[in-house]
Amino acid sequence: MLPDISFLDAIAEAAAAETLPRFRMSVAVDNKQASGFDPVTEADRAAEKAIRELISERYPEHGILGEEHGDVGLDRDYVWVIDPIDGTRAFISGLPVWGTLVGLYHKGKAVMGMMDQPFTGERFIAKPGEAMVRRHGLNSGISTRKGVSLGQAIMMTTSPKIFSEALAPVYQRVEDQVQLARYGCDCYAYAMVASGHIDLVVEADLKPYDVGGLIPLVEQAGGVMTTWTGDSAEMGGTIVASGSAALHEEVLELLNRN
Amino acid sequence: MLPDISFLDAIAEAAAAETLPRFRMSVAVDNKQASGFDPVTEADRAAEKAIRELISERYPEHGILGEEHGDVGLDRDYVWVIDPIDGTRAFISGLPVWGTLVGLYHKGKAVMGMMDQPFTGERFIAKPGEAMVRRHGLNSGISTRKGVSLGQAIMMTTSPKIFSEALAPVYQRVEDQVQLARYGCDCYAYAMVASGHIDLVVEADLKPYDVGGLIPLVEQAGGVMTTWTGDSAEMGGTIVASGSAALHEEVLELLNRN
Repeated sequence: MLPDISFLDAIAEAAAAETLPRFRMSVAVDNKQASGFDPVTEADRAAEKAIRELISERYPEHGILGEEHGDVGLDRDYVWVIDPIDGTRAFISGLPVWGTLVGLYHKGKAVMGMMDQPFTGERFIAKPGEAMVRRHGLNSGISTRKGVSLGQAIMMTTSPKIFSEALAPVYQRVEDQVQLARYGCDCYAYAMVASGHIDLVVEADLKPYDVGGLIPLVEQAGGVMTTWTGDSAEMGGTIVASGSAALHEEVLELLNRN
Repeated sequence: MLPDISFLDAIAEAAAAETLPRFRMSVAVDNKQASGFDPVTEADRAAEKAIRELISERYPEHGILGEEHGDVGLDRDYVWVIDPIDGTRAFISGLPVWGTLVGLYHKGKAVMGMMDQPFTGERFIAKPGEAMVRRHGLNSGISTRKGVSLGQAIMMTTSPKIFSEALAPVYQRVEDQVQLARYGCDCYAYAMVASGHIDLVVEADLKPYDVGGLIPLVEQAGGVMTTWTGDSAEMGGTIVASGSAALHEEVLELLNRN
């Protein structure tokens, strides 16, 4: 049986108690180097520890895949996939587009997911049959935008420079076709696809914890998320998230053209 | 005599009443094209109209330079410089990094400025001798980060693709030297320099209304903002905003090297 959404809320609150007080804690670079004090690394580790404690206590039989503290029981039926701060570079730059990502995999398939942004107060949550955002105590269903062709699409990617020499020209085929390409978000871009504000995210070199919390959001909101070759996104790699199956097909065709 | 900060608050609230209800109003591209309904254009125009009405009523003797509704009395001692939505591409993508910019020039020099982001609830305000951010009813003084060399700096720019063929390699000299370069913000990046979270913004092809509200923020927080050649930033063009005079000097030297 899947956890209640209230358990995801408890995770988000425990993580935010560690991240938010360290967000915009301005530290001069010299001080950081001298003291070894690095707010984002501290926040990342402390938040992951808090999340793991909640999971281990409630679901000792589940596995955990995390960025900071190693993996436990990855062969179990249920595995939690955790990124306490996705978008660390946004975090250290004071930008409110990082997020706490938590996904729950069942036999390798992401079935529940959450992206929490505690500064803006947005919590995006998905479980089978439902995708929503909660803000100021209000839940609103979210859905992707349909009927948008590649030439009309808004696309985001973290940076055009994340791609290897081999992948950059392949990515560029997509950027050249969209109506608007924007750079600079990490998990927040996927939440905007799920909410129907943008249509497409194209990235590469992602880890499972970069995508695990986001796949259910995009899928339950009506979108599609796979690797560039159309395979399961759960283990990361090259990733495309699209607002509709038709748009996804258009992008995959372009990415796989010889 | 300069206006009270409460007058800037009135401007921010009048603008937010027009922008915020239209933010994240998802409109399928097809519908937009069919109906001619474009939320960001509507929000931009309606907010500028509301701002201009407040200014004309209170300060009929002042000039106004705006993006949407033309210019009035640019030769007067006091001129307001208005961008109701700076970062329209962020706005249409659902990202909370756009802002309402209002600056007041006295004899060509920006003396008061505001950047308001109503979704996150952040209002950055500067007047002579003071720079602050207001959120949840709390005012906090802001100041830039000092003692950061170019090699330690965090830099932002809207996109590496905003630069002309002639300027791109000159900009690249700076990006190649900084510790971290991030893309994707407009006015929000300058607010982060003023708040000491990042150190540098380098952009080009800006209009007076893109910078007028931001110059006092950066300057009163302890930073420096000029063109790439070190001239006054008030009329826009190529712009550098730095957290400190020492960093600014390092960047200008690099930008003007033969």
